[in-house]
Amino acid sequence: MRYRRDELRFNGWGLKAQSFDLHGRDAEVWRFVKDALGVDTLPDTPAKPLDALTLPSVELREEVLDQLRAITADDRVRTDAYERAFHAVGKSYYDLVRIRSGEIAEAPDAVVYPESHDEVVQILAYCTEQRVAVVPFGGGSSVVGGVEARKDGGQAGVVTLDTTRMSRLLDLDETSLTATFEAGIYGPELEEVLAERGYTLGHFPQSFEFSTLGGWIAARGAGQQSNRYGGAAKQLVAARVATPKGEWRTQPFPASAAGPDLNQVIAGSEGALGVITEATVKIHETAEARDFVSFLFRDWESGVEAVRAITQAELPVSTLRLSDVAETHFYGEFKAVLKPSKAQEIALGALGKVGFDAPCVLMVGFEGPAAIVRMSWRHAFAIATRKGGLFVGRGPGNSWYENRFSMPYFRDPLLDRGVGLDTLETSTTWANVPRLYGAVRGAILGAIAAGGHRGQVLAHISHTYLSGTSLYFTFLFGRDLDDEVGQWRRIKEAASRAISENGGTISHHHGVGVDHADWLPAEKGALGMSVLEATKAALDPEGIMNPGKLIA
Amino acid sequence: MRYRRDELRFNGWGLKAQSFDLHGRDAEVWRFVKDALGVDTLPDTPAKPLDALTLPSVELREEVLDQLRAITADDRVRTDAYERAFHAVGKSYYDLVRIRSGEIAEAPDAVVYPESHDEVVQILAYCTEQRVAVVPFGGGSSVVGGVEARKDGGQAGVVTLDTTRMSRLLDLDETSLTATFEAGIYGPELEEVLAERGYTLGHFPQSFEFSTLGGWIAARGAGQQSNRYGGAAKQLVAARVATPKGEWRTQPFPASAAGPDLNQVIAGSEGALGVITEATVKIHETAEARDFVSFLFRDWESGVEAVRAITQAELPVSTLRLSDVAETHFYGEFKAVLKPSKAQEIALGALGKVGFDAPCVLMVGFEGPAAIVRMSWRHAFAIATRKGGLFVGRGPGNSWYENRFSMPYFRDPLLDRGVGLDTLETSTTWANVPRLYGAVRGAILGAIAAGGHRGQVLAHISHTYLSGTSLYFTFLFGRDLDDEVGQWRRIKEAASRAISENGGTISHHHGVGVDHADWLPAEKGALGMSVLEATKAALDPEGIMNPGKLIA
Repeated sequence: MRYRRDELRFNGWGLKAQSFDLHGRDAEVWRFVKDALGVDTLPDTPAKPLDALTLPSVELREEVLDQLRAITADDRVRTDAYERAFHAVGKSYYDLVRIRSGEIAEAPDAVVYPESHDEVVQILAYCTEQRVAVVPFGGGSSVVGGVEARKDGGQAGVVTLDTTRMSRLLDLDETSLTATFEAGIYGPELEEVLAERGYTLGHFPQSFEFSTLGGWIAARGAGQQSNRYGGAAKQLVAARVATPKGEWRTQPFPASAAGPDLNQVIAGSEGALGVITEATVKIHETAEARDFVSFLFRDWESGVEAVRAITQAELPVSTLRLSDVAETHFYGEFKAVLKPSKAQEIALGALGKVGFDAPCVLMVGFEGPAAIVRMSWRHAFAIATRKGGLFVGRGPGNSWYENRFSMPYFRDPLLDRGVGLDTLETSTTWANVPRLYGAVRGAILGAIAAGGHRGQVLAHISHTYLSGTSLYFTFLFGRDLDDEVGQWRRIKEAASRAISENGGTISHHHGVGVDHADWLPAEKGALGMSVLEATKAALDPEGIMNPGKLIA
Repeated sequence: MRYRRDELRFNGWGLKAQSFDLHGRDAEVWRFVKDALGVDTLPDTPAKPLDALTLPSVELREEVLDQLRAITADDRVRTDAYERAFHAVGKSYYDLVRIRSGEIAEAPDAVVYPESHDEVVQILAYCTEQRVAVVPFGGGSSVVGGVEARKDGGQAGVVTLDTTRMSRLLDLDETSLTATFEAGIYGPELEEVLAERGYTLGHFPQSFEFSTLGGWIAARGAGQQSNRYGGAAKQLVAARVATPKGEWRTQPFPASAAGPDLNQVIAGSEGALGVITEATVKIHETAEARDFVSFLFRDWESGVEAVRAITQAELPVSTLRLSDVAETHFYGEFKAVLKPSKAQEIALGALGKVGFDAPCVLMVGFEGPAAIVRMSWRHAFAIATRKGGLFVGRGPGNSWYENRFSMPYFRDPLLDRGVGLDTLETSTTWANVPRLYGAVRGAILGAIAAGGHRGQVLAHISHTYLSGTSLYFTFLFGRDLDDEVGQWRRIKEAASRAISENGGTISHHHGVGVDHADWLPAEKGALGMSVLEATKAALDPEGIMNPGKLIA
């Protein structure tokens, strides 16, 4: 286990020892935030400490806890407040608003730390027999309610099964370029183990430091270099899953026509079918070369055209990240506040004079053999330029790359000052990008405004495909301190409806969890849902696995 | 519908008007075949004509046929001998041996030709009500018993549902590079429709001329340029499926984390869950450049190393096709018999002197933008040469490309002369290639020899992946004319066992059908099978869909 639980925030992001670096410019930063939200003051809204937290009482009988201890070990069944609070929520805005308030309606009765696949199988069999709900928990970084300690009605209690003591490298096949890990391994440890041997998985979601291999697969996550390395579902070669009915595994064939591809049922199963205990994934030799270059576009539309053209030329790029006008502006201003630079200011002034007064920035990343990186860069440059892009060098890309895991830390100080920040994402076909982008942006802005607040909605493209792209939205808003949850629900509902009614998927890489479960039937259809329900019934007949997630 | 049924052989390959071209060298070809099988004579074993065929009697009641006519049209419900015989079998060796003998134990009672998704839905609902088995049939090119007119016990009859009158282009999205077709469209028509508009799907299986889009998806087929264009499962963006429970469709998202990917359940469903009536697939702009180059390797092992190295360098090649020593030798000799050339003979003699006396030939194909084709070719050349490859120009590749759809026609004259010819295929990880290759080759040779015959087993690699490769085996043998089916069963059983016990999938791209259904549980595991069975029960509660296929 990479992190002791008490090193991590139970009600915020990441390590207690680490915070977002305001570069000593606190006053300027808060002025910037006030301006962005159109307010004169920001209230103090600190989080309640652990000892002020009201947790539900433990319902599980002591003999159940004893049996779980017998399967694992005395110190691997935890019922103390810190463990229960830490595992009560994920890392969504909705989660944090609740746990910071001190009122948390649902928490696991106990947290169990298995150390092997066989222990997990035994735990699930016993919990099936006792009708105890089981919530699989890796890094717990879900932002869609994927780890809520729900009972579905009738269960005798809820156990959260923390997988992070299962983190060994089990096999490295350097001929086939696959690695088999226990699925509770955290991102940094996985990449360290591979890097020592000259390899990478190449999966770098923003949660990378605090999420696990099993979680990536269960939620069909996608990393920042997914254009080259694929999302977790594509990286998966074979899985071992502990289910209430026992072991379920798939074989490591590179491709097969032996019926449906069950890896693609396991990927996205969100703990509702079982616990992914081991996974074999594709690895790559450590890239020989890497490059990040940036372009500016006069508007979103021409930027999207360039991204589509580069993608459909099937160039081997690793990252294509296009921010819309609002996001480009917001982060540009934010950076100027954190690290003011006269040269930058002059450059921006000059850009304004040649029609780039409200530009969109595109970052293009390349990774692989040096010769292929060079070739791709030449082609991408030609396409971007043809589509109206202005090459602005390597500064913005390198800066983004260096800071790519630090932004989640910025949410906690915002939450301390009455500011709400949430993200959501979708994907659609290229032809439908204008409609979906406009509808979702409008829905979020509208719902924030309907509550009497001013918001900022920032959007970007960050995962592209031959036939379409992801769309990622970040939104900030002044919180309605009398009804924080209601305000969030109204915004989320408006955005989800806009996605569902305008040709988007309810999630490109965050997953379904509790938050999106109501929207899944519209997407999968009645028969699609019946397939998922039948699959669940076959593997989890008592319905103990992660109640309320995926299948509402 | 591209082909009238009476234009096609009911008991052999392709068009009646077309045959394998022996270049007027019949005597030499048959001498070559006799030498290959170590026999002095080849018996005459002609196929029985249609009017000598014994078909089972039609069991379906006339009122059922009337209702099917009411749903479709009078001339779209066929019960004549030609239609029933044509649809009684696929194109496997086992199929042809049986139908050529005149004895065919199972045939559809009727053949129905729907012209729309809605008609298919109505047919399935009616057949569910009447408990009539339904066998979906596209091109009928299955070589694994995928279209056998089975009843699973108890059904009132069998209707074969021929999809080939559903062949329209429904939508072409030139922005998203997707095309939506009715799934009964044949390969050549699909590519013609796309080529007129500047696009290609890029799916060219050997059956291309006589197989359909729906069949490719249902059986997870893979074409000869799958390295660039992917197999059918990867090409699929969205599907519309008619099931006994009604319409099931997936959405055309480029990627989604909204639960399991049900496209990957539809791909490989083999008609056992429903009928794929429409499919949206990824298309590509017609390639600007194409190149096929060949290399010789001193042995199979160094050829495999080269193929793996090119694949794992992630070069955008379209085809990598490596023949083993036996296949290289066999086709080399065969070509010399068909088109003798003094220059070729001298060249081969010279090669023998420099250690290439029993070489393996590797063909590498490139397709795409000219600059990328050039870059890939340079890199592939460097890798192949480093691994001991000898560049032998573009002749062999171009010759293969020109004749790539004609080889299946050669089986019919072989069958007329007492010679058996069958193929099977698998895939495995790179590390396991030596073990699986040796085991399968040995098992086939052993089983042929155990029957007192001499056989030829030829193998090649033709679809490669980061983590492994396909292995394709072709085998010829003198037939045991007293027990043709028994002989085939023993060979097939030995090969399937070798695959199953040595880390291979029972099929890389032919599918499961009847022939591989007994081997599926070992591959999918008990819980994997229970997921498939539960899925089938949810969509096809009466079990009318393609009985005996996929799920035995």
